[in-house]
Amino acid sequence: MTETFVIVGGDAAGMSAASKAKRDDPDLEVVVFEKGEWVSYGACGLPYYVKGEIQSLESLVSVTPEEFREERGIDLRTGHEVVAIDPDERTVTAESPSGEVVQPYDHLLLATGAEAVVPPIEGTDREGVYTLGSMSDGKELREYVARARTGESFQQPDRGPACRYLEDCAGPVAVVGGGYVGIEMAEALAANDFEVTLFQRGDRLLKGFSEATSDRVVTHLEEQSVDVRLGAEVQKIAGDDIVEAVVTPTARIPVEMVLLGTGVRPRTALAEDAGIELGSTGAIATDAYRETNVPDVYAAGDCAEAFHVVTGEPTYAPLALTANRHGRAVGQTVGGTPTEGGGVAGTAAVKAFDVEAARTGLLDLEEGRAAGFDPVAETITAKSRAGYYPEGGDVTVTLTADRDTGRVLGASLVSEYGEGAVHRSHAIVGALEEDATVFDLENYDLAYAPPFNTTWDPVLVAAKVLGGNLRSA
Amino acid sequence: MTETFVIVGGDAAGMSAASKAKRDDPDLEVVVFEKGEWVSYGACGLPYYVKGEIQSLESLVSVTPEEFREERGIDLRTGHEVVAIDPDERTVTAESPSGEVVQPYDHLLLATGAEAVVPPIEGTDREGVYTLGSMSDGKELREYVARARTGESFQQPDRGPACRYLEDCAGPVAVVGGGYVGIEMAEALAANDFEVTLFQRGDRLLKGFSEATSDRVVTHLEEQSVDVRLGAEVQKIAGDDIVEAVVTPTARIPVEMVLLGTGVRPRTALAEDAGIELGSTGAIATDAYRETNVPDVYAAGDCAEAFHVVTGEPTYAPLALTANRHGRAVGQTVGGTPTEGGGVAGTAAVKAFDVEAARTGLLDLEEGRAAGFDPVAETITAKSRAGYYPEGGDVTVTLTADRDTGRVLGASLVSEYGEGAVHRSHAIVGALEEDATVFDLENYDLAYAPPFNTTWDPVLVAAKVLGGNLRSA
Repeated sequence: MTETFVIVGGDAAGMSAASKAKRDDPDLEVVVFEKGEWVSYGACGLPYYVKGEIQSLESLVSVTPEEFREERGIDLRTGHEVVAIDPDERTVTAESPSGEVVQPYDHLLLATGAEAVVPPIEGTDREGVYTLGSMSDGKELREYVARARTGESFQQPDRGPACRYLEDCAGPVAVVGGGYVGIEMAEALAANDFEVTLFQRGDRLLKGFSEATSDRVVTHLEEQSVDVRLGAEVQKIAGDDIVEAVVTPTARIPVEMVLLGTGVRPRTALAEDAGIELGSTGAIATDAYRETNVPDVYAAGDCAEAFHVVTGEPTYAPLALTANRHGRAVGQTVGGTPTEGGGVAGTAAVKAFDVEAARTGLLDLEEGRAAGFDPVAETITAKSRAGYYPEGGDVTVTLTADRDTGRVLGASLVSEYGEGAVHRSHAIVGALEEDATVFDLENYDLAYAPPFNTTWDPVLVAAKVLGGNLRSA
Repeated sequence: MTETFVIVGGDAAGMSAASKAKRDDPDLEVVVFEKGEWVSYGACGLPYYVKGEIQSLESLVSVTPEEFREERGIDLRTGHEVVAIDPDERTVTAESPSGEVVQPYDHLLLATGAEAVVPPIEGTDREGVYTLGSMSDGKELREYVARARTGESFQQPDRGPACRYLEDCAGPVAVVGGGYVGIEMAEALAANDFEVTLFQRGDRLLKGFSEATSDRVVTHLEEQSVDVRLGAEVQKIAGDDIVEAVVTPTARIPVEMVLLGTGVRPRTALAEDAGIELGSTGAIATDAYRETNVPDVYAAGDCAEAFHVVTGEPTYAPLALTANRHGRAVGQTVGGTPTEGGGVAGTAAVKAFDVEAARTGLLDLEEGRAAGFDPVAETITAKSRAGYYPEGGDVTVTLTADRDTGRVLGASLVSEYGEGAVHRSHAIVGALEEDATVFDLENYDLAYAPPFNTTWDPVLVAAKVLGGNLRSA
């Protein structure tokens, strides 16, 4: 008898699962409900679309709905919002403009994703306040940029040219939040000649990265004329219908647009209503196969927890690769080959104008101690290429290890864009995944030639210095 | 009583050992004999010096003799050639312009390096035939380039301008050998407007890399107007005193200069004369601490074998990082902390004009079988950055694993220069060092953002495809 695999959500995790399950078991009936119109899109590309480096939203789509339906044999139903799951009857109920559907399932995957957090402050509902989570968010932001650049932003035409302060500037705008989205959007807006102020509540940007990384990114943003305000809690977005200013305890900065980059939270309401358990992180709890407490119901991607490769504990790290990988693993499991899909290291990368940075593992010393380690950190700066080589820059590496065992716990790297901080982090991810020590890492036979590194790659320099500290301690 | 650590050879392995031993044990007397005048230099930078991208030979020196003597307290004796070792008496005998010295030792390190192989063919002694191993080789080659470009190469002034064939060309020259040195020198010479023919005896360049890598490099060299002759065994370098042509079984190519890039061999005569054993590779055999069969006599760097991280067997991989790392490990051991210094994976990187490539581990299927594996290889090509991102290129990854266990055995990567083939290889080195499988590797939580890779980095794509093949086999 034909089995049915139902998937709620048509982005990375959902469509990876659908494609893999159908490929591995062509007899399987695979039904995907997606409440919007877009599926399988690269949300990570949205800042570059807003910036203007990518010309069409369609180019962010890796596989079109038609391809899923016609070439991959997947019953993809866009415009269908799943409103209820009945685990006892093994059905989901979906609503669409053409009515309600009750769909039985043998296997169910929740891939409902995450949504942008709107902080609980006054004024987030004013016109001119944006988040960047969905394709339609990206579309609206790009339209805003286009209007502003031609002098037709919100406050036009009654207030003259968009930019009130600088001749060549398209307008003062605010970015709230100093994570990847905030930084990428600061770049996208500054590249379009907006005067950008970035508000960060905490005392540094990129708080998941090392301080050395954060500091270098702040310095670079300031070089790029972004006004970075650290320790600046936004209390209110002022204005009438339209945003007029961002208000902090110490300042009122006039702006004509606000981008909220204040994180995401997992979409879990549907799961909760059906009695599916959440974990301590607030995302859906699963086992190593991404199965929830309800048999044959899986959760993967930005709505679900994953296990951390260093601590072994559940963590919430909503990023694209994990969604793809875990979605695919569920597809492979449902397709007949039980597959775990691995843990997460919290690895992330970001480009900030002409600087690149990556982080992986446990960096925060408190977090490391909470996980039972005695973390020791070391930060080094080394040349990205041979010192005598005509090009190159500096790579700063912060490496963390456990004092007793020497086990590598995490790292944060930063360099000029193109000088390899991000790809060099690959070596450390390998070490984390394999429970290697800094003494192992310092002996890694990494590739060397003058156009690519110093004889000891900066990663090795960090391991050597940290290893030396641990030995002599 | 003060102990004496004597080191023969003042380049990477020797000076790393000297520096580390003296730092760890300041009471140690450290004596280094170097037969030439240069110490601690980056021979890997010589092609870029000949090319003209590096302006002075001195800039290749990382630490000067004065710094070693005055700041690091090392008794460095340049111009001293060690001619004999007496293991029973624990002395070495060195000759210098000022006479012979007999130096007692408690610990001895042989760091005599390697020398360029001159193939046994007629005409290698003609003027205009070069190798590139030493600083003086680099100096001579740069002088040749300068002369040739001003119309004063060997055959001047009696034969007119250096270039006989092209108006803008500085002269037809030959590179014999398609390894890194040959390729880097082809780039260095072509960048100086020489008409370059590259002769390779075998059927592909970079024979330690994958075929896919070799093919892409050949295509690129040809795009850069290098005339690549594969399967072209050089039988003779013709001419009178001065080189006139390279002769193969099928062609006679007029040239005014020949660069021999036909590999290196370990300098072992001194060791052999003292009864120190060589291994099956022809280099000095050592244990994991780099100690030879003679107690307290160590060997490290290009004169010595090392253990392969995949096979565990001795191998000869004369490269800069190994020399530095093993030299340092010996220094640390002699300084009081016994240190192994790790194995080698045969990792190597090369830039060829606007292409970069890296290799690591076991790639050759025969070699893998000889080591007891059942190697399976897969080659994939993937985008270096998100498909929609405005820049980027292709990364081609060949990955090899053992059929039964899935263990990663080796990889070869190639991309446009700057698109990360070399730094991406770091992930695979980690997997090799830790005996990871392709199933582990495909789950590595590598950094992702659109300016740096596709969601699945090309390394992960290769692991996923190869893992899929192994699963379904």
